[in-house]
Amino acid sequence: MAKPIRWGIIGLGRIAEKFANDLVKVPDTKLHAVASTSIDRAQDFAQKFSVPYHYNSYQDIFKTPDLDVIYIATPHTSHAENAILCLKNKMAVLCEKPFAMNLKEVQKMVDTARENDTFLMEAMWTRFIPVIQKTQELIAEDRIGKIKTIHADFGFVAPFTPERRTLNPVLGGGALLDIGIYPAYLSLLLLDYPTAIHAVSIFGQTGVDETTSFVFKYPQATALMNATFASRTRTEALIYGEKGYIHLPERFHETRTLTLYETDKDPITFTFEQETKGYNFEIEEVNNCLRNNKKESVKMPLSMSVKLMSLLDEIRQKAGIKYDGIDD
Amino acid sequence: MAKPIRWGIIGLGRIAEKFANDLVKVPDTKLHAVASTSIDRAQDFAQKFSVPYHYNSYQDIFKTPDLDVIYIATPHTSHAENAILCLKNKMAVLCEKPFAMNLKEVQKMVDTARENDTFLMEAMWTRFIPVIQKTQELIAEDRIGKIKTIHADFGFVAPFTPERRTLNPVLGGGALLDIGIYPAYLSLLLLDYPTAIHAVSIFGQTGVDETTSFVFKYPQATALMNATFASRTRTEALIYGEKGYIHLPERFHETRTLTLYETDKDPITFTFEQETKGYNFEIEEVNNCLRNNKKESVKMPLSMSVKLMSLLDEIRQKAGIKYDGIDD
Repeated sequence: MAKPIRWGIIGLGRIAEKFANDLVKVPDTKLHAVASTSIDRAQDFAQKFSVPYHYNSYQDIFKTPDLDVIYIATPHTSHAENAILCLKNKMAVLCEKPFAMNLKEVQKMVDTARENDTFLMEAMWTRFIPVIQKTQELIAEDRIGKIKTIHADFGFVAPFTPERRTLNPVLGGGALLDIGIYPAYLSLLLLDYPTAIHAVSIFGQTGVDETTSFVFKYPQATALMNATFASRTRTEALIYGEKGYIHLPERFHETRTLTLYETDKDPITFTFEQETKGYNFEIEEVNNCLRNNKKESVKMPLSMSVKLMSLLDEIRQKAGIKYDGIDD
Repeated sequence: MAKPIRWGIIGLGRIAEKFANDLVKVPDTKLHAVASTSIDRAQDFAQKFSVPYHYNSYQDIFKTPDLDVIYIATPHTSHAENAILCLKNKMAVLCEKPFAMNLKEVQKMVDTARENDTFLMEAMWTRFIPVIQKTQELIAEDRIGKIKTIHADFGFVAPFTPERRTLNPVLGGGALLDIGIYPAYLSLLLLDYPTAIHAVSIFGQTGVDETTSFVFKYPQATALMNATFASRTRTEALIYGEKGYIHLPERFHETRTLTLYETDKDPITFTFEQETKGYNFEIEEVNNCLRNNKKESVKMPLSMSVKLMSLLDEIRQKAGIKYDGIDD
């Protein structure tokens, strides 16, 4: 039997709840402690998921006996501060995406993890879903030839609730950091860092980017990406090669099927069954790293989070997306 | 009975043949004269389509009695010269897209048409297909709300035949002018001229743009476009609004169906039957203009061709696409 891994969660909003739903389905894994700034929310959450320890202060969670790792699900603007707090307390960390608000913050997180010899990983759960592994395999097998163009988009109509995370600039709101990160990451994973970046944003009433559209140039390829809170888009990814293409249908960042279109052949659809939303795959990756005393994931290393945040910083700079107190 | 319109064609390549196939199906319309620099090709073409007059010099076609209009189907680099020749001979002109190689050439064509009080139109046949009319109607009826993002792409794998029009820089080859013009035009038609343009190109062995990817910014919308000879892409258009979207399936520039997706409603597909490739619609537009003594089409006016070429010039400048002798 594998060593059970005991998880804590900091920040108990919607994403934490979805994550916890999947976590309790992973074998040899326990939801052991939760913390919220609201004691009511901590109590309710603890009760719902039968969590032995709950706190109304993030600082207190470190008192929990036998806690192995903390999942940070607070608003973007608190990620760096929360991660650094955990790492300084020698606690392994899985931190929601975007990893932080800018590269400077990410660098501090990475430095703190190394100084404290502690595990740290960005919760880029798309990286670990079976469809992405299959996509990489098909590309490695040269089924579509060299990649020439990637299209990926992510769009939904955000209800106008200015105080909530999505649209609130104080909480790091905006389409790019919230959902544009998925198409940006896909291109980074498949084609690495672009040689040129162009980006435009449309800003909404609250001042955050309602839409951000960007183009990446590579030596032999391009990528076209869109993120928007203004339209319900197909939220699909198309990876075009010289000899065919791969289609990841909506919503591509969590899809369970992909279709391979090879020139002059019938399309082939691959389907992966699962009873979870899909957070279990990243949870299993963290568990395995901790069981093997690894300080980083090979699949989602810290160097990748540094690249991803560099990319987001550059897109923001090109599109004119700024956050008070972050970019000053 | 409508006055029969007698057509001539200059340049007898593949596009001329496809056009002629449709032209002979249009009522009260005659293919009356053809001209090629090759007498064999002129003879073959005349025989195939039972054309009364054929010539091995473009200049000679003006001798034809009762000729009403000339369709110019020569390579892009000759469009301006050929159109000006026709216009100076007081001949109405339908000229293939791209209208010319740059804005300066287009301006000369427009000036010559006005000086000679002669009809001139760009053969942007997509403008006249029923699906585009239906798209505009649905948008005018507010079925998808305000447009927020347009995606459109056009891609096929061009065989490596460096001497042919597609890849030959001397003939104005490259993906943008050949096929990128369709997505660019769609955005221009639906959202007008963008407030900002970004573009990147990948250049192939012959020096022409193998791929050009571009993003347009509008006050309240963005457009993402791709044109490539390196991949067989879906060649579709997606027009996303606040309340739904319209999908023009492959190949969108000549499609006979569109699907309307309205939020929380079943999708509706509109299909338009036709026995032609679709050139008949632009031919009918020209016929109607000539019968009514119009010098421009209301649907594809010269001001639109000026805008379209300005757009292509700006994309070329941003992406670094140059043609010797054109951009010097």
